[in-house]
Amino acid sequence: MAKSRHAVPDTTIRTLGPAKIGTPLRHPRYVDETRPLKLVMTSEELCELDNETMLLDFEKAGPREKLYFDPPKTKCAIVTCGGLCPGINDVIRAIVMESHYHYGIRTVLGIRNGLRGFIPKYGYDLKELTPQNVSSIHQFGGTILGSSRGPQDPGEIVDSLERMNVNVLFVIGGDGTMRAASAIVDEVERRRRKIAVIGIPKTIDNDINFITRTFGFDTAVEKATEAIQCAHVEATGMDMGIGLVKLMGREAGFIAAQATLAMQEVNFLLVPEEPFAFDGERGLLMAIERRLLHRGHALIVCAEGAGRDLLEESRRTDASGNVRLGDICGLLADRMKAHFAARNLEMNMKFIDPSYIIRSVPANAGDRVYCGFLGQHAVHAAMAGKTGMVVTQIKTSMAHLPLELVTSKRRYLNTDSDYWSSVMEATGQQNYFIAQ
Amino acid sequence: MAKSRHAVPDTTIRTLGPAKIGTPLRHPRYVDETRPLKLVMTSEELCELDNETMLLDFEKAGPREKLYFDPPKTKCAIVTCGGLCPGINDVIRAIVMESHYHYGIRTVLGIRNGLRGFIPKYGYDLKELTPQNVSSIHQFGGTILGSSRGPQDPGEIVDSLERMNVNVLFVIGGDGTMRAASAIVDEVERRRRKIAVIGIPKTIDNDINFITRTFGFDTAVEKATEAIQCAHVEATGMDMGIGLVKLMGREAGFIAAQATLAMQEVNFLLVPEEPFAFDGERGLLMAIERRLLHRGHALIVCAEGAGRDLLEESRRTDASGNVRLGDICGLLADRMKAHFAARNLEMNMKFIDPSYIIRSVPANAGDRVYCGFLGQHAVHAAMAGKTGMVVTQIKTSMAHLPLELVTSKRRYLNTDSDYWSSVMEATGQQNYFIAQ
Amino acid sequence: MAKSRHAVPDTTIRTLGPAKIGTPLRHPRYVDETRPLKLVMTSEELCELDNETMLLDFEKAGPREKLYFDPPKTKCAIVTCGGLCPGINDVIRAIVMESHYHYGIRTVLGIRNGLRGFIPKYGYDLKELTPQNVSSIHQFGGTILGSSRGPQDPGEIVDSLERMNVNVLFVIGGDGTMRAASAIVDEVERRRRKIAVIGIPKTIDNDINFITRTFGFDTAVEKATEAIQCAHVEATGMDMGIGLVKLMGREAGFIAAQATLAMQEVNFLLVPEEPFAFDGERGLLMAIERRLLHRGHALIVCAEGAGRDLLEESRRTDASGNVRLGDICGLLADRMKAHFAARNLEMNMKFIDPSYIIRSVPANAGDRVYCGFLGQHAVHAAMAGKTGMVVTQIKTSMAHLPLELVTSKRRYLNTDSDYWSSVMEATGQQNYFIAQ
Amino acid sequence: MAKSRHAVPDTTIRTLGPAKIGTPLRHPRYVDETRPLKLVMTSEELCELDNETMLLDFEKAGPREKLYFDPPKTKCAIVTCGGLCPGINDVIRAIVMESHYHYGIRTVLGIRNGLRGFIPKYGYDLKELTPQNVSSIHQFGGTILGSSRGPQDPGEIVDSLERMNVNVLFVIGGDGTMRAASAIVDEVERRRRKIAVIGIPKTIDNDINFITRTFGFDTAVEKATEAIQCAHVEATGMDMGIGLVKLMGREAGFIAAQATLAMQEVNFLLVPEEPFAFDGERGLLMAIERRLLHRGHALIVCAEGAGRDLLEESRRTDASGNVRLGDICGLLADRMKAHFAARNLEMNMKFIDPSYIIRSVPANAGDRVYCGFLGQHAVHAAMAGKTGMVVTQIKTSMAHLPLELVTSKRRYLNTDSDYWSSVMEATGQQNYFIAQ
Repeated sequence: MAKSRHAVPDTTIRTLGPAKIGTPLRHPRYVDETRPLKLVMTSEELCELDNETMLLDFEKAGPREKLYFDPPKTKCAIVTCGGLCPGINDVIRAIVMESHYHYGIRTVLGIRNGLRGFIPKYGYDLKELTPQNVSSIHQFGGTILGSSRGPQDPGEIVDSLERMNVNVLFVIGGDGTMRAASAIVDEVERRRRKIAVIGIPKTIDNDINFITRTFGFDTAVEKATEAIQCAHVEATGMDMGIGLVKLMGREAGFIAAQATLAMQEVNFLLVPEEPFAFDGERGLLMAIERRLLHRGHALIVCAEGAGRDLLEESRRTDASGNVRLGDICGLLADRMKAHFAARNLEMNMKFIDPSYIIRSVPANAGDRVYCGFLGQHAVHAAMAGKTGMVVTQIKTSMAHLPLELVTSKRRYLNTDSDYWSSVMEATGQQNYFIAQ
Repeated sequence: MAKSRHAVPDTTIRTLGPAKIGTPLRHPRYVDETRPLKLVMTSEELCELDNETMLLDFEKAGPREKLYFDPPKTKCAIVTCGGLCPGINDVIRAIVMESHYHYGIRTVLGIRNGLRGFIPKYGYDLKELTPQNVSSIHQFGGTILGSSRGPQDPGEIVDSLERMNVNVLFVIGGDGTMRAASAIVDEVERRRRKIAVIGIPKTIDNDINFITRTFGFDTAVEKATEAIQCAHVEATGMDMGIGLVKLMGREAGFIAAQATLAMQEVNFLLVPEEPFAFDGERGLLMAIERRLLHRGHALIVCAEGAGRDLLEESRRTDASGNVRLGDICGLLADRMKAHFAARNLEMNMKFIDPSYIIRSVPANAGDRVYCGFLGQHAVHAAMAGKTGMVVTQIKTSMAHLPLELVTSKRRYLNTDSDYWSSVMEATGQQNYFIAQ
Repeated sequence: MAKSRHAVPDTTIRTLGPAKIGTPLRHPRYVDETRPLKLVMTSEELCELDNETMLLDFEKAGPREKLYFDPPKTKCAIVTCGGLCPGINDVIRAIVMESHYHYGIRTVLGIRNGLRGFIPKYGYDLKELTPQNVSSIHQFGGTILGSSRGPQDPGEIVDSLERMNVNVLFVIGGDGTMRAASAIVDEVERRRRKIAVIGIPKTIDNDINFITRTFGFDTAVEKATEAIQCAHVEATGMDMGIGLVKLMGREAGFIAAQATLAMQEVNFLLVPEEPFAFDGERGLLMAIERRLLHRGHALIVCAEGAGRDLLEESRRTDASGNVRLGDICGLLADRMKAHFAARNLEMNMKFIDPSYIIRSVPANAGDRVYCGFLGQHAVHAAMAGKTGMVVTQIKTSMAHLPLELVTSKRRYLNTDSDYWSSVMEATGQQNYFIAQ
Repeated sequence: MAKSRHAVPDTTIRTLGPAKIGTPLRHPRYVDETRPLKLVMTSEELCELDNETMLLDFEKAGPREKLYFDPPKTKCAIVTCGGLCPGINDVIRAIVMESHYHYGIRTVLGIRNGLRGFIPKYGYDLKELTPQNVSSIHQFGGTILGSSRGPQDPGEIVDSLERMNVNVLFVIGGDGTMRAASAIVDEVERRRRKIAVIGIPKTIDNDINFITRTFGFDTAVEKATEAIQCAHVEATGMDMGIGLVKLMGREAGFIAAQATLAMQEVNFLLVPEEPFAFDGERGLLMAIERRLLHRGHALIVCAEGAGRDLLEESRRTDASGNVRLGDICGLLADRMKAHFAARNLEMNMKFIDPSYIIRSVPANAGDRVYCGFLGQHAVHAAMAGKTGMVVTQIKTSMAHLPLELVTSKRRYLNTDSDYWSSVMEATGQQNYFIAQ
């Protein structure tokens, strides 16, 4: 194995976040520690801190001088869980390449179809991953390993890891998967095994706590803007034209907001974080009407989780049980049709839902670079014997974060931020359509 | 005006189609003819002919030695009607450039929002089109003139043409629009005016009679394949994964079939021209089940007009009046869910409907070339005094076709052709799921 | 093996070409014929015919009722030769899929690195091609088999085919390769072996005789237009800006001409088929100067083989032996610099040479469909026992052509055609810069 | 004018850079200050500090509570200078939209063809910029205003600004342009005029001091990866194939390095910051030979400014004055040919130079978002009366930087960083080919 030219010590990244000066280093645990790291502050306390801009320290990612595992004897495994996201294959590829070429590790196993792949009753084969068979996988969207949703029994998973003699497990997945990874770490510790578990957080919605950029997000936004551009063309192709675009984002509107910034033609943006009202002089419907009468067309982008309260209210009041009401865009379409019909105005709506198109494409160059970093640093961390952590970018540096931090709560759009203010400027949208 | 270097006489293109040798030249009418061309065969007779491969002659497109209109005194107008299609702006641009640079015509008017733009009560302004303001429009999807659906009174339209002193009208639209163009030609003739009306057939579905390639079709197929690739990635990303893609095609499945040939991963293709059955050992649902059990995933492409009989039957038998049943993909999804649930099998379906995305993008290079030809030849035909005709490609040559030919009936996929046979080979699909 | 649903007899495609009515069917030879087909007209005679539009018959491609080879005992091989072209992998994939799924052939061998792969001294391994290992190759440009240039001894090649017990050889390559294929056919016949040799013509330059569309051409044009658009942006980004784009095309300017039609911003197009002069009032340099002074920018597209006479003249007269003169764009750049300097005029030239970028990308949807047809029909032809032929599209149908036809001479742009006339209109270029 | 919902005070962004704690706020000057800001540390001192990670404060960008200029009386001008870069039009658009819709400014003038546009002798017209005429310009690469290189007399420029009654000048350009902007600020101050000058730094090479991300860089990298992928396909398409890609980067190799990270197939990366030797057992040529013999192909990416010492040495020793030697890729190609010929080894090199293709395309989504921020914040800063500054992103926040900071020195790749270490891992390249 080539010795790292650029080994870095366990120094910290000083950054500025919602924590008091003096917050202890947020280092992850080590495989050979007998007890979990005692944090001076729990992650709950940490997350409850106000927004004072103060120093927060994270452990810097990078190769370490001293390896915990002996590479020729180390066996790695990779598992990919949950929904697809651009760049999963890039991360897999980077882990395999780094393990093989940088450390000289001989075996990297691919677990099939998510956590199910550990469970004997599903009967899935392993897939051995080599530099040869992963060399072109980054050209494809999705995951070559397959995925599945939902947890599996940590005991069975660790049984499987032991049977396979795996020393290092890389877990690529969302917040549910990171909780599963925590459970695996606990089970490994309970059994006093020396198995490192390293998470690589994945979410198309970009809503993982502490993690300002998840891989694949930029690519998803790029594809989302194409759908918005098409809706813009459709809306302006007819008099009184409305383009309505639905984008992913059940809990958080990051994709919709960022795509709106990229495609500065959007007039109305609806996200879960910002409630709105249909009715009244200051409601959404009148705002759309004014826009149509004034400019001849309107472009609406709607995150799938927007207006949840309106959906529920609609369900309560609509005894007929219209099935489309499960969907905010269906409700909005119905309400617009009714509104314009009642006012005897023409309206030509074109609805576009790119759905999975934005998440199943290959990663763009920026995401590829990021996925490469994630894979490399995940291997560095594991080989140094760290466990119970994720690799991620904090501001502009790569860092280690204890698993507890990323699973403790979800991240949302801050609608009281400069960012959101720029989004509002981009739409020209007033928030006067919020119910009084 | 520059004299055409390459003027061509009113010769014919000999091609091979469903007509007898000796079928008279299918020349379009001239503006200064007092009577419409008497065809030896009506278009109905022509279309009823069997498929014997015989000679059929069309008038060759191209600049003519003798101009009917005096360019400096000629005023042109362009109108775009119906749904969007990649390349409309390319055609507009080509007409303007050809009129201006090749013939020295000074005025080309853009009619706003389709045929409505002729009708005073809508109050739409005209948009003067110049080489400057159209020079970059081909970079955008849609139509810079706007569009609308439905016919308008031919009398009012010709009133408007007379008020504006328009000598040549270019009409870009689908089969309904071509019928409207015919009505305008008739009204012009009734009034004995000298106004040429030239059609450029547009249909995203490629289903216009006699016209083997409509502009924008290739581009739409290109975009459709991207959606299919995403569905393939999603289907293979989970065990027992099904990718279901809905594509445009109410009456004819050309887009779905061509995209299937381009993306050779499709396992089941459903088009309006080929009926199928859900149930029974040889039905679609069992075929999907066998595919899933055997290969772990399945990819289904469905033209929106497929399975109309199944939709109607479902409406008759389902008293609950499920609203989703208006949509074949909704019905298929429901039936698959029920089928797999009843057989206690897992199934992970991902549905992608690219909808307008495939038609509102800019044209690709191939369509741009074709749109350029269409615009150039439309101007050549008009300046030679022809009217009541469309320009199009017949086999590999540009030709003039009388309007009657393209409006007489619709074109469908020939499911008894080599083409369809190749499509079936590409899917590996047996048509044993057709009801017995 | 599934019997072909749509078997077609050895009928003909009637098309219109430079041949007399009564020209005999141009059917390819059969493997079990003892003598080559005696043509009533040699291909040389055929090619010398004038352009009278008359009937020319080719054999229609498609599955045949009667198979010559017994599929379970048939062994196929594929070899790819010469420069890259978009779609080679699509053709390979289609041959493998058709052989396996449609005919039930068990073995398809991939020959490595072109004809060299047959020659023992190079020591290249074979690559067995299966539906599994070719299923995603169409996503990549290039050829998974590798390629090489130049001929190899036909005797050694047939020795190799015999050693491997190959019954059918598919040869993908340009006109040199098709001549090599002819030599292989002759050697096979001399030895009285039953080996079918089917060619699939490949040329990025689209200059193979009788073949109006070679696969990959559309894709190459698409990429070429991107380079032209960039040069346009650069040219218009500065006052007195010149964008100069070099495109492939040593002997024929098809790519440059088609890309010019697709990107209607080109002002000067230089192709091998149309000579031009630099100097004089009506020469190219003065035309560029007038354009710059009048419009502020100019866009020039130059096929690499244009102006060969000027290069030679320059070589004769320039004793200093400037090495750049091997290249027409270098010469043009030097001459423009000298011209504008001598006239004390500013000039900002930006040169773009996309070179291999246009040929090493994956095929677009249109080319994928075409490559699929080529692969399918190559297998159909071979299984019917045909040999010494190529599959190609003639007008809009798939046909069989004897190898002699495609190798007899090269195809060039017809600069006395409607097509070229449209190209000239697109550029607005006068051919007054041709030397007097 | 709409009052800003989210006005921010002149607070600071605390970040961590090469400065001592206690470094004074790096606020820009104000238009109405009579003297330039006295910095406690000069930018030279600042830049000489070591790399201790300490606090550095920059002024936070954003709308201010108190406006210095009265919007209805404010006249803005925009000038774009130097080479093209993806996103210039996005910045122009954002400035116009922000000025118009957010502040109610009535006039934004576009200066034509860079700083020349201020100079009467060139006679360029102004172009008035409105929301209408900029609404779609972000779809195009380049700059709608045109550009030019080189400085112009600051006195003449300020004369022109006074004649036009311009209050705010936005200057988009590289480091030379930022020095010109400084000279304009000085001249304005000397005349005691109230004209704000705000810079938006532009460089395709990403090499402006203190600015970690310049707009358009991501897009350029994305396009560069396409060229690299093509070279990879070409290199692997022949035995002993070498793909050689030249990328922009005269002084700094950022594009080449980032593209290498994105396309993990690169085997050799040559940048200006890292010298290398051709010869010797540990030189580049032997490393390429070993790679070819071992793997059959090699992929080399070379920034245009790499190996400058080798070029100079070659010039000294090569009396024949080979003109190609002005170019490192030409030299490398010659040396490779000579090396392989001398060792009697085959070598098939394919050279790709995407040149301007990577910089004249439209911005991707990520760059669009960034350009939108830059334009918005430039307007905010100007309206608050700030001058002599640039807007940029520092870490993940938008900030104001005094002009002196960005013009004081150039930024280079730090080859002793984690980033470079990751790049080296991606190539697998050993730096043993550096001369001993």
